[in-house]
Amino acid sequence: QRQDIWPFPPKEEDPYSMEGIPEDLNYELQMKDGIVNVYDDAEALEQQRPHNLPYPDLETFAIDLSHVLAMIADGPTKTYCHRRLNFLASKFYLHEMMNEMAELKELKCVPHRDFYNVRKVDTHIHAAACMNQKHLLKFIKTTYQEEADRTVLEKGGKTFKLKEVFHKLDMDPYDLTVDSLDVHAGRQTFHRFDKFNSKYNPVGASELREIYLKSDNYIKGDYFARLVKEVSKELEESKYQHAEPRLSIYGRSPGEWESLATWFIQHKVHSPNMRWMIQVPRIYDIFKSKKQFTNYAKMLQNIFLPLFEATVNPRNMICVLFFVDDESKHSDHMFSYKSPKPEAWTTDDNPPYTYYLFYMYANIMVLNNLRKERGLNTFQFRPHCGEAGSVTHLVSAFLTADNISHGLNLKKSPVLQYLYYLAQVPIAMSPLSNNSLFLQYSKNPLREFLQKGLCVSLSTDDPMQFHYTKVREALMEEYAIAAQLWKLSTCDLCEIARNSVLQSGLSHQEKKRFIGPNYLQGGPQGNDIRRTNVAQIRMAYRHETLCNELSFLVDAVKTDVATNPPE
Amino acid sequence: QRQDIWPFPPKEEDPYSMEGIPEDLNYELQMKDGIVNVYDDAEALEQQRPHNLPYPDLETFAIDLSHVLAMIADGPTKTYCHRRLNFLASKFYLHEMMNEMAELKELKCVPHRDFYNVRKVDTHIHAAACMNQKHLLKFIKTTYQEEADRTVLEKGGKTFKLKEVFHKLDMDPYDLTVDSLDVHAGRQTFHRFDKFNSKYNPVGASELREIYLKSDNYIKGDYFARLVKEVSKELEESKYQHAEPRLSIYGRSPGEWESLATWFIQHKVHSPNMRWMIQVPRIYDIFKSKKQFTNYAKMLQNIFLPLFEATVNPRNMICVLFFVDDESKHSDHMFSYKSPKPEAWTTDDNPPYTYYLFYMYANIMVLNNLRKERGLNTFQFRPHCGEAGSVTHLVSAFLTADNISHGLNLKKSPVLQYLYYLAQVPIAMSPLSNNSLFLQYSKNPLREFLQKGLCVSLSTDDPMQFHYTKVREALMEEYAIAAQLWKLSTCDLCEIARNSVLQSGLSHQEKKRFIGPNYLQGGPQGNDIRRTNVAQIRMAYRHETLCNELSFLVDAVKTDVATNPPE
Repeated sequence: QRQDIWPFPPKEEDPYSMEGIPEDLNYELQMKDGIVNVYDDAEALEQQRPHNLPYPDLETFAIDLSHVLAMIADGPTKTYCHRRLNFLASKFYLHEMMNEMAELKELKCVPHRDFYNVRKVDTHIHAAACMNQKHLLKFIKTTYQEEADRTVLEKGGKTFKLKEVFHKLDMDPYDLTVDSLDVHAGRQTFHRFDKFNSKYNPVGASELREIYLKSDNYIKGDYFARLVKEVSKELEESKYQHAEPRLSIYGRSPGEWESLATWFIQHKVHSPNMRWMIQVPRIYDIFKSKKQFTNYAKMLQNIFLPLFEATVNPRNMICVLFFVDDESKHSDHMFSYKSPKPEAWTTDDNPPYTYYLFYMYANIMVLNNLRKERGLNTFQFRPHCGEAGSVTHLVSAFLTADNISHGLNLKKSPVLQYLYYLAQVPIAMSPLSNNSLFLQYSKNPLREFLQKGLCVSLSTDDPMQFHYTKVREALMEEYAIAAQLWKLSTCDLCEIARNSVLQSGLSHQEKKRFIGPNYLQGGPQGNDIRRTNVAQIRMAYRHETLCNELSFLVDAVKTDVATNPPE
Repeated sequence: QRQDIWPFPPKEEDPYSMEGIPEDLNYELQMKDGIVNVYDDAEALEQQRPHNLPYPDLETFAIDLSHVLAMIADGPTKTYCHRRLNFLASKFYLHEMMNEMAELKELKCVPHRDFYNVRKVDTHIHAAACMNQKHLLKFIKTTYQEEADRTVLEKGGKTFKLKEVFHKLDMDPYDLTVDSLDVHAGRQTFHRFDKFNSKYNPVGASELREIYLKSDNYIKGDYFARLVKEVSKELEESKYQHAEPRLSIYGRSPGEWESLATWFIQHKVHSPNMRWMIQVPRIYDIFKSKKQFTNYAKMLQNIFLPLFEATVNPRNMICVLFFVDDESKHSDHMFSYKSPKPEAWTTDDNPPYTYYLFYMYANIMVLNNLRKERGLNTFQFRPHCGEAGSVTHLVSAFLTADNISHGLNLKKSPVLQYLYYLAQVPIAMSPLSNNSLFLQYSKNPLREFLQKGLCVSLSTDDPMQFHYTKVREALMEEYAIAAQLWKLSTCDLCEIARNSVLQSGLSHQEKKRFIGPNYLQGGPQGNDIRRTNVAQIRMAYRHETLCNELSFLVDAVKTDVATNPPE
């Protein structure tokens, strides 16, 4: 079910080329019950005959949801999954004892490929924090030295030059340090997501965030684009590192997409080592209380209609992924199939996590079906999930997401953990971020997940807040710390790197190039050891183990059916 | 008692200049009871009237040693020290709770100085492993590409070209990877110092170690010098990082010093960001069994006579520090003042750790006294200690060393830990090295030592074996991991960095420049916050706490004397 995300393999000569993009159509679009309906023409719209683009209806989803919810609470199922997971962990331990040296030997024989030159994708990184703190500091100093007289900010109808901004803040950028910049997470941010969020404001000043870390501001996101391009240049030089930076679409107004696309194209932000993702912060309540719209459906419209329009009239589109953010917020409302439809969600309260997820997912599915029909790329859905908040979030994501970020809470539910294993739902983990925000490094389940065979990758989340070494080294810092603390072998590290490519939004072509032409096949057949540096012994172990678990289940079902035939 | 180590502040224009070096003398040198005696002239030698250069005699040392040994085993003293250490830890915890934000605020107000641009010294790093594995790999590939026809090795009377060496090893350097290079420590090296030592051989081939990592070989150490200079160039570019790489003198033959000095001077290895240390591996037994000398005194002669000669006739000297290595080896012999004198140590057995330490120390002390008299720099004595082996090693080092490397075993003795605190004996710790060899990271006592106020610094030990990030970033990797795992504050990090400068062999001038003109004074007076970025609140806390502990002891002694007057 994994899909390419870049609409066409990016052309090295001109990634912004319109070549090969299909013609515009006269389709009509209309949102109904929170989901975009597509009509072939005005007549079809009038007769309410939508184009056939299947998506799971709310009721089916609600039934599936309650099914899995019942399962994770069921005693015998819990025991079963718990025992299977323990079995998987012990089995890996045995595998390691028996085959560690053989794996190492295999890797030693691979010419020219080692951990340093296998491809690694930073699968979870926020664009506004993709540079490290020292980088941002230097950039601010440079702009002040060279462009102090540039008008950079508009506030309350007045414009300000860069030097005026700093003057107002009573600050000389020459004296600015990493300490006074104060964007790095520390002991103060642990279990304080609010304090962490305010770290996005350099020197605690929202003006500087506006000037340097926004794409839609008085200087048309010039500084932000330059920062991002400096990061992508580093990545290109490193050659083997890729990143999937996340930019925000809030759903506040229908113009957001166009503004973001303009920024992207005008500043030529494209880089072969970057794939872009869109994050949708879960802050309906804030916009609603500011009366920016009247109901939840309006927010969905702002997010999705432009995407459908771009699919119908694709001559002016940019390319994205989907994503929901900030799951730690609590909602009083309990999601069910009786929940008010988005058009009827008019209270100031934020809808629950599952509600967000369902409507994102349903719309993306309609959209992907339309895009497939039109020969365009499709999008992945990769929400933040299991970082904080209720375990049930992981149930909703299990039913909807292509992969998730964090997944810490799988620790708490053996049934879900086993399901994520069986379905090989990829998990982009960021133990250093967790360490600053939610969970001590030594308690992070990444190593345990890896041993059991869950499809985990390593990612940085926010180098600006969490890392010490340079941009290009932030992902290396993440790998190095995991390797040191958990005594991971080279094979372990390369398996994580391979997972990161597998679960990334890189194109099918790129994945073939980076991890092997048959990468979609399981086991050693799918692994080109000369590209991945993952031992075939390991690949065989993973494949056999997964097949065993699956056939074990199938057998159990068969036996069950034989002894208790359905009436 | 800390001393400068470079003989004269190195002249930027010509660090190899002989300007200001005193004239040669006609002194006579003779080793007696394992200690070098200096005579003013031949007549004085004949009459056995040595120059007055005091050193602690063996008996005094043995008495002091047994005194401290009795102390660390004494029940009441153990209880007392244990309680004081607990008090220190709790007191720091309170300090942190009360003053953390105030310290941070102080640091935010320091213009232009943050953790990234305070000076840091890598206080413990072996020259033969000072590059990272990737760096060595690239270097090997480059030499093969450019100099395959160069004759690089002599073995068994035959010479070999570089391509012949690789051909003999059945290896194409193009295919070489970090995996096949196999110099990185892994799970296999934990508690296996022997396996660790063999990691110094690239591809397991001692030939490659000989060619690339030795200063005295067929190519006169050309490759090793180039590697080291690449590392020092990186350090110079980083500006704020220094290192104290360690080179070996084995004491096998009297010519070793000259050979090393020639290598150093001919290849112009000097760098303003490096201070050199000499390590003396504790492998008397190996040379003895190969019949390279007849007794231990000969080994001491090989090590020390050239240094005395260079002090007497200094026009051709290089500049060094001392250091004993590899303490994990067990010795059957028990050190006492009745131990055979070095001239009488003729067995094949290795002398015990304390025996090595005493004779190193006594000779260095004589040497330093002579050098002081001549207006030359003096040397520090900085042994490996408390990494493995008996706790008593720490007793010997307490009596003799300027500072120690590792010190892990202080965990095991509250009395020694308290003594090291009271005397502020600096400790260069390397938790990542320990993590690969002797002690899991999470159990490393560094954080606890720092909290209690012991003078600890961070060092890399062997980037080639332990680190993942680039050369310049290896020390940063060390700091980053400590910061992440132990949630160290910026003030903590900068305190460790300040400690590293303090305990390093940098000159008095450099220390004044890097940490403040009054750095020898305790407390805030000695701290220039604009250079160190250590909060004055922290400095005051450390100073007051130490003064309190000391006066507490003094008072106790007074009371004791008052109630139990000496008879």
